[in-house]
Amino acid sequence: MRATVLVRPKQGILDPQGQAVESSLRQLGFAVGEARVGRVVDLEVDAADPGKARAEVERMCEQLLTNPLIESYEIELGEEAG
Amino acid sequence: MRATVLVRPKQGILDPQGQAVESSLRQLGFAVGEARVGRVVDLEVDAADPGKARAEVERMCEQLLTNPLIESYEIELGEEAG
Repeated sequence: MRATVLVRPKQGILDPQGQAVESSLRQLGFAVGEARVGRVVDLEVDAADPGKARAEVERMCEQLLTNPLIESYEIELGEEAG
Repeated sequence: MRATVLVRPKQGILDPQGQAVESSLRQLGFAVGEARVGRVVDLEVDAADPGKARAEVERMCEQLLTNPLIESYEIELGEEAG
């Protein structure tokens, strides 16, 4: 089963990459508010059941994919990778 | 209007970060297929109309947020940032 994980810096955590994007976009003339940059991880998980797949991806997030102190994550199942 | 941009390495393009994630997950005992790593950019766009907002974000992608040679992007409007 296909899984997409969105990893974002938590609110209140400094995001220098987002600040750089925001300031560059403004210099290019775009009217943007706050920009935040995170990661997207696309995975193929070896689990047929959505519940089991989600639990498995949650364990991956806790153990490797995210830093729970400073990042939050969101799991989407069954999506096609772009 | 809130916009979320997903930027992914195109198919066929080498993704060393994805390969590292994949091999680390397997070493931790997870049964995963191919992993690919990209970026997620959350933005606040100064446009009330969804069509205009999308066109504006597309221009940002072409000019700054992505490298169209090696990356593809997907735009989602109106989502809350995590």
